[in-house]
Amino acid sequence: MTAHKLSELGVSNALKSLNSETVSPWVIEDGKLTKLFQFKDFQHAFGFMTMSALYVEKKNHHPEWSNTYNKVKVQLITHDVGGVSEKDFDLAKRMDRFAG
Amino acid sequence: MTAHKLSELGVSNALKSLNSETVSPWVIEDGKLTKLFQFKDFQHAFGFMTMSALYVEKKNHHPEWSNTYNKVKVQLITHDVGGVSEKDFDLAKRMDRFAG
Repeated sequence: MTAHKLSELGVSNALKSLNSETVSPWVIEDGKLTKLFQFKDFQHAFGFMTMSALYVEKKNHHPEWSNTYNKVKVQLITHDVGGVSEKDFDLAKRMDRFAG
Repeated sequence: MTAHKLSELGVSNALKSLNSETVSPWVIEDGKLTKLFQFKDFQHAFGFMTMSALYVEKKNHHPEWSNTYNKVKVQLITHDVGGVSEKDFDLAKRMDRFAG
């Protein structure tokens, strides 16, 4: 699928829709779709990362993410379009499911 | 194993020994034993992370790390002792092998 950079309004609307289904919200930080996931322990955090890794590799759309024990910070951006695109919102939704 | 915070000299000596076996060096950054690993692609980067994850979970000594596509930045510290310990150097050595 071809990615398009979303407008500010587009991002705002997509964020509302995305966050309506989750407890802790995604936000825009450094121009990237960002969320700090918190798990029970490292096993659960890395299990989430592994499920996500298989998905992002298949989609060829990779996150920037960091992990410290039970925490995983995820930042999504579509470098090809220089901003946040539908691809990032699709991945965010999937990651919420993988975490849930 | 009980961890002990290494002295500056201890860290310096352990770094020399560690880096004698690797191409790209470990350094001390923000008081943590730090290395930026670079791989061929995401598959190889995440493969490295998966091997490391199984090891660190078994040892109950976890890294702070971040990944962007083919790059993995690792930072090691022993929070119990408020500094770098033998545990961090043991893990660093293992991670070099997993990456190699």
